[in-house]
Amino acid sequence: MYRHIVQYYETDMMGVTHHSNYIRFMEEARIQYLKELGLDYLRLEQDGIISPIVHVEFDYRKATTFGDLIEINVYPGEFTGIKLTLHYEMHNRMGELIGTGKSVNTFVDARMKPIRLKKDFPDVFELLTRNRREIL
Amino acid sequence: MYRHIVQYYETDMMGVTHHSNYIRFMEEARIQYLKELGLDYLRLEQDGIISPIVHVEFDYRKATTFGDLIEINVYPGEFTGIKLTLHYEMHNRMGELIGTGKSVNTFVDARMKPIRLKKDFPDVFELLTRNRREIL
Amino acid sequence: MYRHIVQYYETDMMGVTHHSNYIRFMEEARIQYLKELGLDYLRLEQDGIISPIVHVEFDYRKATTFGDLIEINVYPGEFTGIKLTLHYEMHNRMGELIGTGKSVNTFVDARMKPIRLKKDFPDVFELLTRNRREIL
Amino acid sequence: MYRHIVQYYETDMMGVTHHSNYIRFMEEARIQYLKELGLDYLRLEQDGIISPIVHVEFDYRKATTFGDLIEINVYPGEFTGIKLTLHYEMHNRMGELIGTGKSVNTFVDARMKPIRLKKDFPDVFELLTRNRREIL
Repeated sequence: MYRHIVQYYETDMMGVTHHSNYIRFMEEARIQYLKELGLDYLRLEQDGIISPIVHVEFDYRKATTFGDLIEINVYPGEFTGIKLTLHYEMHNRMGELIGTGKSVNTFVDARMKPIRLKKDFPDVFELLTRNRREIL
Repeated sequence: MYRHIVQYYETDMMGVTHHSNYIRFMEEARIQYLKELGLDYLRLEQDGIISPIVHVEFDYRKATTFGDLIEINVYPGEFTGIKLTLHYEMHNRMGELIGTGKSVNTFVDARMKPIRLKKDFPDVFELLTRNRREIL
Repeated sequence: MYRHIVQYYETDMMGVTHHSNYIRFMEEARIQYLKELGLDYLRLEQDGIISPIVHVEFDYRKATTFGDLIEINVYPGEFTGIKLTLHYEMHNRMGELIGTGKSVNTFVDARMKPIRLKKDFPDVFELLTRNRREIL
Repeated sequence: MYRHIVQYYETDMMGVTHHSNYIRFMEEARIQYLKELGLDYLRLEQDGIISPIVHVEFDYRKATTFGDLIEINVYPGEFTGIKLTLHYEMHNRMGELIGTGKSVNTFVDARMKPIRLKKDFPDVFELLTRNRREIL
């Protein structure tokens, strides 16, 4: 599980966390999730491998604000070998649902050619294909 | 149509506009769109009426980077009287599709009670219900 | 000491942490520093007390990037009873100096009237006036 | 003169433009200022020349918020041939002073070696050395 404490600069004049920031919290959680699976984003970047997002969405249920703890769970969704779908659930300290999200990303090399996780990261490929679970 | 020029601080180390920023560009375009319809966000805020986002999504087709012009068209989608769905199409200077988005927002007063556009903004309600067009 | 891990979305196309973000890291460190002194920013905000920044500056020595740890120390500077000056030193994991900063903030109530820390937060006032140390 | 309209996502829960954003507005104004002088930041970047900020500061006089127009004037300060100091004055629509800023930046190539503006951009060097004016 990933934890994010809402910063003052992440709030807006409505007095709550600006909705765009949840997309950033998803990125934070995704990077940690992939790292724990053995896919170190930082190492990938250093190898010239980048991971463009092709789709993102979020459903907002309950607002958060400055100082709030957001607990984020990431669950693997569909994985085609090229496109990886991830699902996100965010809860506050009281266990209430803050919102749910979804992202789809790919992995490409410096020339924007897709990399094959199956060949280059067989363990991760195995984990992602076996472990996935559909949310909702 | 709304225009946004990508700022240097909106790029990331991948060399392109960070994906979370498109959610912000959608907000910029939405605010102008609603203003042109007669629903001045700024005035709403001053009256204590706020407009929480309950859903947002974006499909990324083509990257942009520092200095790029993004042209954003907003189209009305479903409008239930409480929830307003808007669709977004973003193109670059060459007319290429950068991506498409969707947002759903509501309108509530200071006590978080939904406001009835039909009663309080009949002209906007009329426009939104008549004018909407489904994208795709 | 406050710790910040640089997020992917905090980098720019130069491949490093965008310079504006250090001002935000200073805010994160300042809020924790004041909280540890007994001046809980979150509680202040809930009481309608806000803390506008009137001056900020930063000297950049060494770049950081995605995944880097930034260790931030905050030191009290001049305190007039109304204006509080704080100094910041940021180091990376190797102990190298990333940069130094300075901020000046005030404390005002909902009507923008300055609050007197001496009267309302005598312990904090005492700490801030006794404990301060000039950097450089 | 450069113009920035404050976006909703640039405000914070204090109801005003978050102070860190003025550092970003300075960047926007600086890039336009240098471009008008003939130093196209976008072209520089494409040539592998980057322009790290080594110092930044801002004095806040009057808050702004969502929808406000900020007019930014940039004035050349000291120019050593390597380090360029720029001064900033921001005013609102009523001509009131919002704040003043200062930045110092250098120009380096892909290997982080300083480039000599005097040799590579003699016209700009000439303009910057002749034209400068001290603020305050």
